[in-house]
Amino acid sequence: MTLSASAPAKAQSGAVTKRLMVVSNGSHLELANEIATHLGVSITPLTAHEFANGELFVRFDASVRGGDVFVLQAATGSLNTWLMEQLIMVDALKRASARHITVILPFYPYSRQDKKHRGREPISARLVADLFAVAGAERIMTVDLHTPQTQGFFDGPVDHLLARSLLAGHIRRRYADADVTVVAPDASRVRLAEAWAGLLGERPIAFIRRRDTLYSRHSRTAPVVGDVRGRLCVVVDDMIDTGVTIASATRLLLGAGASGVIAAATHGVLSGDATDRLHASGVREVVLTDTLPIPDGKRFPQLTVLSIAPLLSKAIQQVFDDGSVTSLFDGQA
Amino acid sequence: MTLSASAPAKAQSGAVTKRLMVVSNGSHLELANEIATHLGVSITPLTAHEFANGELFVRFDASVRGGDVFVLQAATGSLNTWLMEQLIMVDALKRASARHITVILPFYPYSRQDKKHRGREPISARLVADLFAVAGAERIMTVDLHTPQTQGFFDGPVDHLLARSLLAGHIRRRYADADVTVVAPDASRVRLAEAWAGLLGERPIAFIRRRDTLYSRHSRTAPVVGDVRGRLCVVVDDMIDTGVTIASATRLLLGAGASGVIAAATHGVLSGDATDRLHASGVREVVLTDTLPIPDGKRFPQLTVLSIAPLLSKAIQQVFDDGSVTSLFDGQA
Amino acid sequence: MTLSASAPAKAQSGAVTKRLMVVSNGSHLELANEIATHLGVSITPLTAHEFANGELFVRFDASVRGGDVFVLQAATGSLNTWLMEQLIMVDALKRASARHITVILPFYPYSRQDKKHRGREPISARLVADLFAVAGAERIMTVDLHTPQTQGFFDGPVDHLLARSLLAGHIRRRYADADVTVVAPDASRVRLAEAWAGLLGERPIAFIRRRDTLYSRHSRTAPVVGDVRGRLCVVVDDMIDTGVTIASATRLLLGAGASGVIAAATHGVLSGDATDRLHASGVREVVLTDTLPIPDGKRFPQLTVLSIAPLLSKAIQQVFDDGSVTSLFDGQA
Amino acid sequence: MTLSASAPAKAQSGAVTKRLMVVSNGSHLELANEIATHLGVSITPLTAHEFANGELFVRFDASVRGGDVFVLQAATGSLNTWLMEQLIMVDALKRASARHITVILPFYPYSRQDKKHRGREPISARLVADLFAVAGAERIMTVDLHTPQTQGFFDGPVDHLLARSLLAGHIRRRYADADVTVVAPDASRVRLAEAWAGLLGERPIAFIRRRDTLYSRHSRTAPVVGDVRGRLCVVVDDMIDTGVTIASATRLLLGAGASGVIAAATHGVLSGDATDRLHASGVREVVLTDTLPIPDGKRFPQLTVLSIAPLLSKAIQQVFDDGSVTSLFDGQA
Amino acid sequence: MTLSASAPAKAQSGAVTKRLMVVSNGSHLELANEIATHLGVSITPLTAHEFANGELFVRFDASVRGGDVFVLQAATGSLNTWLMEQLIMVDALKRASARHITVILPFYPYSRQDKKHRGREPISARLVADLFAVAGAERIMTVDLHTPQTQGFFDGPVDHLLARSLLAGHIRRRYADADVTVVAPDASRVRLAEAWAGLLGERPIAFIRRRDTLYSRHSRTAPVVGDVRGRLCVVVDDMIDTGVTIASATRLLLGAGASGVIAAATHGVLSGDATDRLHASGVREVVLTDTLPIPDGKRFPQLTVLSIAPLLSKAIQQVFDDGSVTSLFDGQA
Amino acid sequence: MTLSASAPAKAQSGAVTKRLMVVSNGSHLELANEIATHLGVSITPLTAHEFANGELFVRFDASVRGGDVFVLQAATGSLNTWLMEQLIMVDALKRASARHITVILPFYPYSRQDKKHRGREPISARLVADLFAVAGAERIMTVDLHTPQTQGFFDGPVDHLLARSLLAGHIRRRYADADVTVVAPDASRVRLAEAWAGLLGERPIAFIRRRDTLYSRHSRTAPVVGDVRGRLCVVVDDMIDTGVTIASATRLLLGAGASGVIAAATHGVLSGDATDRLHASGVREVVLTDTLPIPDGKRFPQLTVLSIAPLLSKAIQQVFDDGSVTSLFDGQA
Repeated sequence: MTLSASAPAKAQSGAVTKRLMVVSNGSHLELANEIATHLGVSITPLTAHEFANGELFVRFDASVRGGDVFVLQAATGSLNTWLMEQLIMVDALKRASARHITVILPFYPYSRQDKKHRGREPISARLVADLFAVAGAERIMTVDLHTPQTQGFFDGPVDHLLARSLLAGHIRRRYADADVTVVAPDASRVRLAEAWAGLLGERPIAFIRRRDTLYSRHSRTAPVVGDVRGRLCVVVDDMIDTGVTIASATRLLLGAGASGVIAAATHGVLSGDATDRLHASGVREVVLTDTLPIPDGKRFPQLTVLSIAPLLSKAIQQVFDDGSVTSLFDGQA
Repeated sequence: MTLSASAPAKAQSGAVTKRLMVVSNGSHLELANEIATHLGVSITPLTAHEFANGELFVRFDASVRGGDVFVLQAATGSLNTWLMEQLIMVDALKRASARHITVILPFYPYSRQDKKHRGREPISARLVADLFAVAGAERIMTVDLHTPQTQGFFDGPVDHLLARSLLAGHIRRRYADADVTVVAPDASRVRLAEAWAGLLGERPIAFIRRRDTLYSRHSRTAPVVGDVRGRLCVVVDDMIDTGVTIASATRLLLGAGASGVIAAATHGVLSGDATDRLHASGVREVVLTDTLPIPDGKRFPQLTVLSIAPLLSKAIQQVFDDGSVTSLFDGQA
Repeated sequence: MTLSASAPAKAQSGAVTKRLMVVSNGSHLELANEIATHLGVSITPLTAHEFANGELFVRFDASVRGGDVFVLQAATGSLNTWLMEQLIMVDALKRASARHITVILPFYPYSRQDKKHRGREPISARLVADLFAVAGAERIMTVDLHTPQTQGFFDGPVDHLLARSLLAGHIRRRYADADVTVVAPDASRVRLAEAWAGLLGERPIAFIRRRDTLYSRHSRTAPVVGDVRGRLCVVVDDMIDTGVTIASATRLLLGAGASGVIAAATHGVLSGDATDRLHASGVREVVLTDTLPIPDGKRFPQLTVLSIAPLLSKAIQQVFDDGSVTSLFDGQA
Repeated sequence: MTLSASAPAKAQSGAVTKRLMVVSNGSHLELANEIATHLGVSITPLTAHEFANGELFVRFDASVRGGDVFVLQAATGSLNTWLMEQLIMVDALKRASARHITVILPFYPYSRQDKKHRGREPISARLVADLFAVAGAERIMTVDLHTPQTQGFFDGPVDHLLARSLLAGHIRRRYADADVTVVAPDASRVRLAEAWAGLLGERPIAFIRRRDTLYSRHSRTAPVVGDVRGRLCVVVDDMIDTGVTIASATRLLLGAGASGVIAAATHGVLSGDATDRLHASGVREVVLTDTLPIPDGKRFPQLTVLSIAPLLSKAIQQVFDDGSVTSLFDGQA
Repeated sequence: MTLSASAPAKAQSGAVTKRLMVVSNGSHLELANEIATHLGVSITPLTAHEFANGELFVRFDASVRGGDVFVLQAATGSLNTWLMEQLIMVDALKRASARHITVILPFYPYSRQDKKHRGREPISARLVADLFAVAGAERIMTVDLHTPQTQGFFDGPVDHLLARSLLAGHIRRRYADADVTVVAPDASRVRLAEAWAGLLGERPIAFIRRRDTLYSRHSRTAPVVGDVRGRLCVVVDDMIDTGVTIASATRLLLGAGASGVIAAATHGVLSGDATDRLHASGVREVVLTDTLPIPDGKRFPQLTVLSIAPLLSKAIQQVFDDGSVTSLFDGQA
Repeated sequence: MTLSASAPAKAQSGAVTKRLMVVSNGSHLELANEIATHLGVSITPLTAHEFANGELFVRFDASVRGGDVFVLQAATGSLNTWLMEQLIMVDALKRASARHITVILPFYPYSRQDKKHRGREPISARLVADLFAVAGAERIMTVDLHTPQTQGFFDGPVDHLLARSLLAGHIRRRYADADVTVVAPDASRVRLAEAWAGLLGERPIAFIRRRDTLYSRHSRTAPVVGDVRGRLCVVVDDMIDTGVTIASATRLLLGAGASGVIAAATHGVLSGDATDRLHASGVREVVLTDTLPIPDGKRFPQLTVLSIAPLLSKAIQQVFDDGSVTSLFDGQA
């Protein structure tokens, strides 16, 4: 074979370069777009569709080779469908030689199934971590896990962001002069309430006992532990799903003499009749972030939605720059 | 502490025992029940539900410790949902100390995405195998993979059953005297057609070229390769999804002078308008198995559904007995 | 070579047999012996010593090939030394062809480091699970994890036993007529207190706030949330380490008018001056189990130690027999 | 110890650099050299020999620490020997801290054993992928796999190059005016023939049935499906091994009235008497690439060998530059 | 569907059974057959061939499902070929659901490359262990490793048998009255010589220095360390490969006044001109075992070959019976 | 949401950067500090303490994200404690996104348990490698392994440094004119003695037989093999632990007429009464390095300690720079 004598155009040594890419699909493109704008990048174009039998297809329309890719996914629709789609995206990125793959789960799916409550149950939150690992994810970024131990389910870096400061800042500004008591809606959230009590300034705490530990409807044992009479109760939780917990807490607290009830949580799952239930519960305000999309149909007058995009964008930027994310954790991780 | 001098009731050595268990859930319980009846066992009771936000929950209501568990799942509804449910079942079985876990996929999901057709695509069929492996599956049993290479995606035993004999037996009996030509609906199925030609006795083969390789609507190149005039064409495939392939093949073959068209496939996906499309296509008979449930609403006059339960039951029994499954493969695997 | 024509003495097929073996070493041989007695077996003999430079050596003096081996370890001395010794035992068992290796950790080491409290911390409880897995352990049996999510750190069966019923039964019998309030020593234990409130019959709950969330020594906010005046307070926790938490809770509760204070916990770490501190704290009784050895030097008049051996023995027997362990979980896992 | 006060010469932070290295050994150094020339690098020097008992030894004679190493191997001699040598090279590179290790398999060994044809067979093509993975390979680059599903056997990026355009370009130029029919030598290659029909312009297709599906020597069924009379037949395949398939196809096609036969395949295995067989078969031209070395002794008058080096060099360069390789796939992967 | 009311013929619970199977192929079938005879079983039938291009194919002709399979392989021909064949056998057994797979390597290939002698070398002995592990082997049985540390390269049980007693017994019987000195042919074998000195009764030791550490041909330093004048020297090693080491040791020892030289080693590699070299060396007797086949063409008058089959058979039986193999180790492992 | 139009401050592509970090804790901070000084960096600050029950805690007080971290650990105290602490450090670094984690083990723990000496023993040196791998270490750097095969226990790069040149240089300079014989203290060290004989110039070798191979106290067999009368004996070993070996070798050699005895070893374990024993043994000089800390209390008049820091610093720098470490190996690895 005859090769021209000219030297090759390319140098065969040099610096390893990196490139920040954001990948997303589905119904929460709003959040993805907001993050991309913050970061000054475009969302990497892709082709995706669902076959008639439910199988999903994804192809990236631009090279991802050597990219530091952040894969964001969240959807109101079928949780298992977007979970599977995100796994498929990660598989495609791995096979297309992305340099680093970070999975962003603003809301970590199956986070409540983080232990066996009884025998012969799965630990689905660990399963989710394993599925992402086997697909090719090297790092997970998530917000307000149901229990922080879930970090340990993944064998690699987990950037666990807390939306607590964001939510508490809103409460602090709006109810600066109120006599606030922080209320845990059940026993497992008292630790969270205690953290909030600190964020809001020296505040008392109360909590509500589970009804099924109070035996009979004629129980003499009061369900509210701690003093709430005449106080503005801020009920705190990691997520609001059906709204049953918050609605019944609101009624109990008002019945116990609270002057008003405000609910604050990071994740607005708002499934089923949650919107109607909360609207009718007597709650004064419900504060959420948009880690999950909250479409117009699920909004109601007392609802306030704060954007999680600035927090996620800062964390992505720090990860890309090899900077410290710790400052975004409120001193917790 | 004082222990009575009496010897323990239990002997601390002895034979390792085994117990066959069948586990299933969801919309194809019909198949599971039929298999269980064949095997003379009951389906292991479980509690399962879907939370309002789409998360699934499973708990087994009887001990599975030490059991040889066969986990069967299939559903018309959302493919990703039942895939995730089956993974969760496997996780629960692993954590509950099942002795052996075999996943039964009568229809292997994502079997068509078994390679990158172009760059930056996933290989979802491999991903599915990896997901089951990381969840805890030791063996996969499946029927008529889209390509047999998919067996190699799993790092362990794959019992690959073929429904071909079952389907061909039906054709042979019903059309004993016809001048049959076996037709592949596209180039990639010609190998399958050749195998069918053998099963049906010394038969000619034909196949249909993909329209997009025929360049223009005025193409002089005939789309049917092989002789079909005056012959009863048996179009064979592994699955019928939207029915577009079979319906257009039927029209092409009848236009090319075929005396009639019969379609045979293992998996009846029948998504979207498949039922109407097949019903109106001019096809004489469509023969399927029930690896996927075919509800009444999807049935149509020309449809014949053969039960896959006897084949699966025999294979399960052989696996449990450490017998040979090879005889169930038609000499293929 | 010439072989005699006689048939071999051994049959080359037959039943797979199993044999229960208990392996232990170190300073908690008392517990191991009690368990062995319950099970009607002897502890497998081994040779072990520590080299002058701290390296440990273990050799089993009887064949373990094909055995179902339960490896029990616990020690008052250096926690890291017995952890390493148990890992070395597991390695030796794996290389000597044990059939199944179950690690018994009556007290799970590093269970409190189950999450990153702040950035750049380890998750040592996950690390411990990984170390046992890589050494060759297939299953872990443990008692009262600091948080139940730790189960999910191990990729396999975890038998998580609860000593709660044992402890609560003692309290119930001895203080049948008292007006009991269950008290969580801090916010993260309120869920545990709620479970105890159920076990003791319909009881009220209270909890104590962390001092560092109460800002100043002149804080007006009361540290005890819930009503304790005139009541017998049962302070519950998973472990008592330095005794500081229990001692200060006792003083706070007595100061708040409690008629008496009882402390109950599963694990008696009792490190440092714990014995003196508890003895002098004004506590009426401290109830522990012997998941950790409690030598005479650490005993004090108010201390009651219940044996954990019956619970562990039953669980081992059930695992060996492929029976259900769920009943030993108090309906929790 | 006394250290001079002078600052260290080296800066302890800076850019991560990369360096392209090509490693090879054995009888196909010709291809390796041609690729190295294209890339403007030298082949990394190594010491290698075979011990008298067949064990192989390799040592690299220059530092590979931090290098992006492409390991190319191919040989006419013993396939298992060069496979083992390539595995040993990868092991040495891993232990010598290469930054990235890409295995180049111009001809993927055992690519035909990509499924169990019957029970109790290996899936050797998956085994090969696993062997390279465990040795330390991160990426595989290969040309024209026997079935593209083999990509999925490796859990990482596979750059699957197609030599089809190269071969078809040659045919197109040399036989521009001929009435070409593309012929698949057996049913499993019809999909390939269809792709070729597109590359050569709107061309008809035919294929040849397997003799053992035609039952008896007096079979009336024609072995050639499709019209070949008076046409120049281009028989396409991925490899030519013994030449039996091509030689008998040639005779069948000429017997069926073809005006001439040309064979085109990527891999020239040419084992046994292939050269003589092809030479005497009546074939007009056989077109191959040099993915495998074709020594003078295997050449024959009708043989044309095209160099694969430009395609491999471009792909290596793109991988090193984190550029897109997709364009080298002919729109396929 | 209608099922007859009759109960299924098979019971769905019962004892797990086991079955001893021996699998082998290639040129050392003699050893395999002898072992099978000892064990009273037949070698499992298989179909195997080598394709013209060197690829190997294996299919087992009887069910191996549930079997405890011992895979024996050894050959004079190409070491890499039989290594690859054994890996392929293991892959096939894994995919065919064998219960346990034990690889028998009478001679462990690449055992000498057990460390990096210099930088950028492979550790091929570790690679071999990893290859078998990834293919599916659970246990390795081998004889007289070059260094016993190689056991640690496999993450599972390694049954390391020693042929030392067998060889020493022969020497003891035949040279009962001689004044024996045990000689290590190089510095790394002195530990072995010491063990032999014990087996032969209280014997002196000597060893031979490596020529390349003696600088110049005129070196005054004696190459033999220890007293050999007038003594019968038994030179011991793990293998005899080219025979150069033994032949030159023999000459050195005779030159130093030894009354005779006997060589004993486990593995008879005998590659190249070894036979001629040993024959002509002046050695009185060479004692080997048949861990490697020693065909007639390699035999010479002074050669004695002892059968390794009894030792391997006993070990296989013990493994199958879950008995202790330790007694076969001469107190070493 | 409203984002200001201003572009982001950060560029979203650029060079990947690296940063050398040294991490250490515990009682050998002297060595760590010396290394850090050589490298011109500071030791990364961390918070570490031991809980009262022996559990260890580590948190890094500066960001390690993206760092090339070298984790050095060694301690006189409890070997298992510092081993566990180093594992915990690696876990924390992995979860904090360090780019590369290299574990530095100046003295590799459990290096002597590198094989099963008898049945049912662990291979603790392999276990140590696995523990570091599962914790997250990518590379190990160590000095003078007990056997070089231990390199193969880790599935990744092992930089095996040799202190031999350092020690031999000292001997060469101080005893330039002496008639030196290099003595192996037992049979397994003869290969080491041979290497030393080269480093010191053309020197004779001798070795000492193990007492337990000499049968009876009245044995006529001399324990010293080789000529030592009137010579200065340099006894070489990898470590001096209790000093028994060196002390008894010294006495034996002096008894056999040696003019003097010098001992040289890399690792000064010096456990138990080693100091007194060596001091009183009659040895002229003992030369060690400080791979392990040698506190004042363990020093004695004849002891010389050479600093290992220059060697380790050079190796770290080369690893960080992707340079060659081979030159630091004395041509061995």
